[in-house]
Amino acid sequence: MNVLVLGAGQLARMMALAVKPLNINVRAFDVGSGNVFDPLSSNIVFGDLTQGIEFADFITAEFEHIDHQTLALCQASGKLRPSSQAIKVGGDRRLEKDLLVKCDVANAKHKIITTKADFDQALNSLTFPLILKSALAGYDGKGQWRLKDQTNAEEIWHDIKDFFDGGAQGVTNAVVAEQMVPFDREVSLVGARDSQGNTVVYPLTENHHTNGVLSVSIATQVNEALQAQAKQVFDSIANELNYIGVLAIEFFQIGEQLLVNEIAPRVHNSGHWTQQGADTCQFENHLRAVCDLPLGSTALVRPSAMINILGEEQVPNDILNVASTTLHWYGKSKRAGRKMGHINVSGKNEQELATRLQLLADILPEEAFDELKPYVTAYQNKLS
Amino acid sequence: MNVLVLGAGQLARMMALAVKPLNINVRAFDVGSGNVFDPLSSNIVFGDLTQGIEFADFITAEFEHIDHQTLALCQASGKLRPSSQAIKVGGDRRLEKDLLVKCDVANAKHKIITTKADFDQALNSLTFPLILKSALAGYDGKGQWRLKDQTNAEEIWHDIKDFFDGGAQGVTNAVVAEQMVPFDREVSLVGARDSQGNTVVYPLTENHHTNGVLSVSIATQVNEALQAQAKQVFDSIANELNYIGVLAIEFFQIGEQLLVNEIAPRVHNSGHWTQQGADTCQFENHLRAVCDLPLGSTALVRPSAMINILGEEQVPNDILNVASTTLHWYGKSKRAGRKMGHINVSGKNEQELATRLQLLADILPEEAFDELKPYVTAYQNKLS
Repeated sequence: MNVLVLGAGQLARMMALAVKPLNINVRAFDVGSGNVFDPLSSNIVFGDLTQGIEFADFITAEFEHIDHQTLALCQASGKLRPSSQAIKVGGDRRLEKDLLVKCDVANAKHKIITTKADFDQALNSLTFPLILKSALAGYDGKGQWRLKDQTNAEEIWHDIKDFFDGGAQGVTNAVVAEQMVPFDREVSLVGARDSQGNTVVYPLTENHHTNGVLSVSIATQVNEALQAQAKQVFDSIANELNYIGVLAIEFFQIGEQLLVNEIAPRVHNSGHWTQQGADTCQFENHLRAVCDLPLGSTALVRPSAMINILGEEQVPNDILNVASTTLHWYGKSKRAGRKMGHINVSGKNEQELATRLQLLADILPEEAFDELKPYVTAYQNKLS
Repeated sequence: MNVLVLGAGQLARMMALAVKPLNINVRAFDVGSGNVFDPLSSNIVFGDLTQGIEFADFITAEFEHIDHQTLALCQASGKLRPSSQAIKVGGDRRLEKDLLVKCDVANAKHKIITTKADFDQALNSLTFPLILKSALAGYDGKGQWRLKDQTNAEEIWHDIKDFFDGGAQGVTNAVVAEQMVPFDREVSLVGARDSQGNTVVYPLTENHHTNGVLSVSIATQVNEALQAQAKQVFDSIANELNYIGVLAIEFFQIGEQLLVNEIAPRVHNSGHWTQQGADTCQFENHLRAVCDLPLGSTALVRPSAMINILGEEQVPNDILNVASTTLHWYGKSKRAGRKMGHINVSGKNEQELATRLQLLADILPEEAFDELKPYVTAYQNKLS
């Protein structure tokens, strides 16, 4: 079986590694260069997308910000899973919010802004503080604004106008204004749906972000009611999209309620722990769904955590002395803040997991993993 | 880090998959063609061994029947782990038996036979029934004889003579005659030793053979005394060889005593369950040892089993519906009896493992997995 992945980053690489034992060959289309790569050898195998499409039994994606022409070509081949519609929803907050409303799932109160009138109306009808996010992918770290109150509103509107003007030619962007939610924690649900409509979900994962980037995920015992609530949201969205593959949903948890923050139509960083902590990892389950193989069990094998390695091209080998620790490099060149790899660690129970996390936090350099120690300490305190 | 593996079969492939996340690149030398392959893409990367040796930071082996000239070249590079001496021990039953005697570890009473006088002496001094095995690798399934008593002794000696005469030019072979042991079961111990002399071992694995080929392995809770006995043997042998890497020891268990049957200086089929059932799999631990990285924990995560797929190029997809089941194909062309892949399955306890094994046995075609059902039934009976 041959699968083409749109995108040639670490997610395509981890898919390729996960399904090589199933005799599924993954090739990765790099949207930047237009080449198709073998993600394991990094060799170019085709010089253009057309050959990649021809080669593939199925096509999937590792990210959602793919130009619409590429998506249309793949969709027309009849091989694209999930559909271009589902991928677009992940790449445009307007479509995403429309979907959430259509599925009637809880999410933060919001307004879509394209004009000054929309902007004024949003500020009047929503409750401060607000977060405003570009509907399409931001560039150079731009595309996000926070408003505590009306102060600086005019200035921010000008900034948004400039941002719109700086966007790609012929593309109409917008900004989604949301009421900021005083959430207790961020969690995500990763699951898979096959072409028959069967769905499976992993246990809810707690996520900790550092400067807006995921730094640690922990998957442990599940609060059944919360898990059921999340599963219901997953099913609504996945069924509405007639989704095929792995889909991730990020939530804000407030008390016992989950509000959808955003959805990602793909395997997700917060599901990397499944490589060691679940019966079947998210990468294999994604390709099982895409290739019409039975979905694998998503049961938690044991409490597990993932630590992202951001902007570092090495970590002390000593971490490999911590039992159950596995190190996953992506083979990428170093850049500040870039996702370079991750560390998975597990324990037979949460206490053992916490102890091992503490060992790792003690070994990893504090300057590069600055929020790890306090996070682990807080986790240990929660357990004791 | 670059590693050259002598041998380009499934073991090299599984090593490559296991350590790609550690940014270790594995290349595989095919002794037949003399080419060096990328075991994941199957592309030829070098046309001869010399380039492969130059490329490598370390060299290791996936099998023991390697010509001595190749071993000498690799040994001379200073990169070979384990040493050529250790690899040769695995490929010659004379050296193996000498080692067992030297290490003073329990093994079946035996004699080495090169002449008719040796043969007669063996038949007189050992107790029937005897098994006689070629010291060097047999060819075309030849090289093994059984004697219940003196009947046919002359005939068998002539056969052995013919076998010697049919061997490679300039190579002196021998036959090792062993008293056949009425063992209770066959078990194996897979472990690793690093260049500092640290050793770790996986739990003892129970092995079931069909027509002399491993068909099922099960790794479960360990009888501590038996495990300690096996570990002591492992340490004696590994230390004597100044061994670096994964080493497997096959035992006959008689009551609470373990007799060494044979040793394999490499990752081993009976350790494939570690891919899903242990903290660190044998493939990663082998390369960790070879590359001077810390050895990984060998703890059992949960009771696990492995079923070999022999001579079949497909199995029903339905097996993927059985929770915790993973399928590992080797990408090899079909040949009767050939190791084509394996299935790993786990359970939170032995009862769950047995139930899942039963489900698999019910799905897998009986003609190709003929001893699986009775084996699983026996296992279930043992548990209840």
